[in-house]
This record gives sequence, structure tokens and C-alpha cells, in this order.
Amino acid sequence: MNTIRIQASKEYDVCIGDGLLSRLGELVTQVCKPQKIAIISDSHVWPLYGQVTKNSLEQAGFQVVNYVFPAGESSKNGATYLSVLNFLAENQLTRTDCIIALGGGVVGDLAGFAAATYLRGIDYIQVPTTLLAAVDSSVGGKTAIDLPAGKNLAGCFYQPKLVVCDINTLNTLPAPIFRDGCAEVIKYGVLFDPALFVHLEHAGCAFDRKTVITRCVELKNTVVAEDEFDAGRRMLLNLGHTVGHGIEAGSNFTISHGQAVSIGMAIVARSCGCGDAQRIIGCLQRFGLPTKTTLDAQVLAEAALSDKKRSADAVKLILPEQIGKCRIVSTPVAQLQSFIEAGL
Amino acid sequence: MNTIRIQASKEYDVCIGDGLLSRLGELVTQVCKPQKIAIISDSHVWPLYGQVTKNSLEQAGFQVVNYVFPAGESSKNGATYLSVLNFLAENQLTRTDCIIALGGGVVGDLAGFAAATYLRGIDYIQVPTTLLAAVDSSVGGKTAIDLPAGKNLAGCFYQPKLVVCDINTLNTLPAPIFRDGCAEVIKYGVLFDPALFVHLEHAGCAFDRKTVITRCVELKNTVVAEDEFDAGRRMLLNLGHTVGHGIEAGSNFTISHGQAVSIGMAIVARSCGCGDAQRIIGCLQRFGLPTKTTLDAQVLAEAALSDKKRSADAVKLILPEQIGKCRIVSTPVAQLQSFIEAGL
Repeated sequence: MNTIRIQASKEYDVCIGDGLLSRLGELVTQVCKPQKIAIISDSHVWPLYGQVTKNSLEQAGFQVVNYVFPAGESSKNGATYLSVLNFLAENQLTRTDCIIALGGGVVGDLAGFAAATYLRGIDYIQVPTTLLAAVDSSVGGKTAIDLPAGKNLAGCFYQPKLVVCDINTLNTLPAPIFRDGCAEVIKYGVLFDPALFVHLEHAGCAFDRKTVITRCVELKNTVVAEDEFDAGRRMLLNLGHTVGHGIEAGSNFTISHGQAVSIGMAIVARSCGCGDAQRIIGCLQRFGLPTKTTLDAQVLAEAALSDKKRSADAVKLILPEQIGKCRIVSTPVAQLQSFIEAGL
Repeated sequence: MNTIRIQASKEYDVCIGDGLLSRLGELVTQVCKPQKIAIISDSHVWPLYGQVTKNSLEQAGFQVVNYVFPAGESSKNGATYLSVLNFLAENQLTRTDCIIALGGGVVGDLAGFAAATYLRGIDYIQVPTTLLAAVDSSVGGKTAIDLPAGKNLAGCFYQPKLVVCDINTLNTLPAPIFRDGCAEVIKYGVLFDPALFVHLEHAGCAFDRKTVITRCVELKNTVVAEDEFDAGRRMLLNLGHTVGHGIEAGSNFTISHGQAVSIGMAIVARSCGCGDAQRIIGCLQRFGLPTKTTLDAQVLAEAALSDKKRSADAVKLILPEQIGKCRIVSTPVAQLQSFIEAGL
């Protein structure tokens, strides 16, 4: 098991290893002694991993209740959020109890937001079961729900008490979902780590799970420690995301987050004239990820303007200069469409 | 104009004076330069003070949008909260924009929660128009909505950027609403300040608005500065509130918050054998506040158990020892009913 200590306003461990779900109860007792734990999960993950998780916690002496909602981004909304809050209240969870988010990014973001706001905040633990959640959304304390106007428009910064990533859960991921996570992994290489990028270029989907996830979490930790509240350097992690959010919204969410980020990275790499653009695009394609879209620049620009990184008259775009080095560029709202156009 | 500097994790001013609504634009420009301001208000307050507020802000150069919801505690729910979030998103408020909560405690709690969570937090300004909001809910950063299972069960700690209390707005308060606030004012006397209590005993409802509100905010500031996140001393401010929440819920919210707190204070004063119980009850009655309830102890105890101050097996009760001195007592859940019974 690899353990990384996250240095945010609250410190906590990310544990990465084989078979950690069956050891979850033991790991949780090291950080909190709650009387009650509410597992929040979805209809894909719960049938696969619900029982082993519950058993492990009960064997460690916890009283476990669980709430399972329909899998998919469309559940990450206000109605599901309120249902989770009501579930917690009906089960009389108190401030000394705890929530476990068992699933991918949708579960983690939603359960984290519920934890951040139920009784003005109770402890929660992230148990990511997708690659994307393992390397990105489970670490760093960003919680969110979507609004009709756009993705992740409501939420809190709220750090978990612990993150436990059982890499065996990745074995049951459908290939497209696994590839979604690969887009984020490649992103870390482009942003910060030429050696990681080279490893991914060569190994493709056969990269070493434990080593690569650990490296991504280390890189994320460096960024979060410097800029927990997303006012500066943390925005780098949005490489491909502003345009990507536009692609997700513009496609009515038929294009997944990972695919959209992949296309978004390809668009900004092309448009900004990065010398490594072809290598970036080649690596994405090696992983079976898309790098083109049929949506037009006007639709993408309009959808991207609901992005949180927007100020009144500018959008912060993350532009690769070369592999391992990117910069944040404030782009006037009026220029966004032509910037995207140039990268299609 | 009196100004008190609140010493929380973020510092901000509370301005208290005559006619401040018409100076609001000027006051707001001193703390932020947002392009856009969303005023959140309710159907009682907006017709009285909406236009003067909007005019003042527009004259100072702000672009103003407003969202008005039906007045009353029953609006402080998840549905209204989501509507406010959607309103902010549809009007494309960005992270550099600002929310103004114009109204009483319901407006302040709800708008504050929306501000805390929209785009993971944007600035907000409290403009309390009731006595209760002026002395209590607008200061200290507690934001909340109610859930079906109980009051204030979801929310955040999130400090405003500024609080502006125009005491002229108190002149239009219906007498029962004004008295609701008096219950909280008396609470400050019982908790911390025998001189304030004596002034209230003698002056009754004719107490000096500006001086008394200023004193209450100073007292609240002392508590919040020591314990912003409600883990210790801040719980004192819940004098009368645990039983009070039970009374509100048990009466299906036909008994107002202020009346319920008044009855709650009277019950705990009687039950704990405080030597000043009769003086406390006498003062509440001088303000026309109730000190008895027909609800029975079992109903009150059960309703009070959804209180946030509850841990798994105990409830924190605030018990007066004498006027100006109270203590926090952890009371086993099983003893709550008999404790309440003794104070009815």
C-alpha cells in the first residue's frame, strides 16, 4: 500500500493499493471512531462493491446505513443532493458520524457536498472506484453538484478525512470509463511531468496502476498545497476543462467528461501553437481517446462561458507550452470563440 | 453610525445606524467592486425596501438583479435554495460578483447558504431588516436551510463581507416580529451582561435600538472570535434554542422562533433551578413573550433530538446559573424528556 499525505488546510492520507476495500473498516478506525457511517453509492458500484465495503465496516464495529442513487452524471443534481441530506437526517446522523463516498466522481462530488453541508459539515471519506476519481476528484476537497445552467456550479471546498483507493476496483471498469480516467492521467503528464508522459506514450493502457495513480496524486498534492482554494496555480488542473465543459454541455452530456477533456486538451494544444501538440494528440489517440468534435466553435464558446473560472469579462484558459509546462492565460470573453475555432 | 469589526476567520464590519439603506451603495463600494449584485429578498421586505436598496446600489454603479421569494420560514427549504442557485447561474453571476441578503433571518440564512455554495463561494453582504437578524443571524457566518426533519440541518459556516443594519427598518416590523427579536436580545443579557439585562427589565420594548443592537453584536463578536465553528463557547448562544427548536417543530411552526426561544429559556431556567429564573421569566413577560407551552415533554424531547448540538448519546444544553452567567451541560439523550418535564 502506498500512502501520500495531502497537505491542505486539513491534512489527510490517500491510501492506494490492492484489496483495500476488505481492509476499509480497519483503515477508517485509524482516523475516526464514528458510531454510524452512511455509505453513499450508485446503482453501478453498489452491486459490485457495496457488500464487501459494508461487511468490512461492520466487522470493525461501525453501524452502517447506505443510500444508493441511479448511476450517471444526470444524478449529480439538486434533487439527488437534497435526497441525500434527507436520508442523513432521517437516519439521525450526528456531527460525530461519518459519510463514505463509494464510487466515481459523481458519487464523490455529491456525497462530499452533502458531507460539507449536512449539519454545517461532518466527516467524510472518499473511496474512489474509477480511475478518474482516483487521480482527480477524490483528492483536494472540491465537492459539487451540477445546475441546469452548467456543471459543478454549486459546491464547497471541503477536504475528506481519508481517501482509500483499492486498485482492484479498476478491473471491473468498462473500457470507456477507464479511458475517461486516462485523459486525466495524461493531463498530469502534460502539465507537470515529462517522464510520466513518456511512460504513458509507451505503455498505453497497460501502464502500472499503482505507480501511476500514486504519481498523479503526488502531483495533485503539490498543486493543492499551494492553492487549495483555486485562486491561482490550482487552475492549471483545468487543462482541457473549460473547452471540455463546453463539449459536454454542447453534446447534451452524450460525450463523457474524460472524452470531452481529451478533445479540450487537443483543441487548446492546436490553437495555442504548442510545439508538442502532435505528441499530446498522439498520446490521447494511443489511449483510444477522441481529439476532434463536430460541435462548432460558437456553441462551445457559449457553453464554456458558464465556467467558474470566468470573471466578468475574461476566461482563464490553460495553455500547454511544452510537455511538462503549461501556463494560465486570461482570455477576453469576446476572443474565446475564435480561439476555439483555431483549434478545431 | 456605529461600526463593529468582527474578528472571525475573515474580518468584516457591522454598520449600525439610521438611514443606512439609502447609503448602501457607498458602503458596499468600500468592500468590493463587483460588476453585478444579486439582491435576495422576500415578499414582505422587497415591497418596503427593495427600491431604495436597488436605487442606492445602481447610483453607486452596480448592475442589480433581484430574486424575491414568498416570506416565511416555510420558504427556507431546499427548493427555494436551488431556485436561488439557478437564478444566480441564469444571470451569469461570476466569482467576482456579489449577493446581498435583504431581509430577516430566513433571507439571510438562505441567501448566505447560496453565496457559500454558488461557484463554491462568492461574496455576500447581510442587510438585516428585523431585530432578530440584526442581533443574531446576520453576524457570525452561520448559513442554513431547513430539512423536513428539522430546522437548519443543512448549511455552511461562511462569513459575509459586510453587515449593514439600518435601524429605521425596524419601525415597520409587526409587533410580534419585533418581540421575536427581543427574545434574542434578552438572551444576550442572560448569557453575558447583567447591565444589559437590567436596562431591558426597565425599558421594556422602548429600549434604545442603536445602543442595544450594537451591544448585542459586540457580545456576539466576542463569542464568534473565540469559537467560530461552534465547537465550544459559541454553543452558549443556543440558550433556549434546543428546547425552542422542539417547540417550533412540535407546533408545526405555528409558534415563531422568538416565541419558542422565549419559552425554551423559561423552561431551562425553571428546570435547572436557577435562582434568577423568576427574573428571567418576568423580563420575557414584560416584552409580551410567552413562557409556557401546552406541548408535552415527550413531543418536545423527540423534536429536540434532531438538534445539531446532539452527539450520538447526548445533547448539549445551555443552563443559566445566574443572570450574566450560563454553562454548557452535556445531557444524556435518555434524560432530556424528564429535564424538560421539570421545566414546563
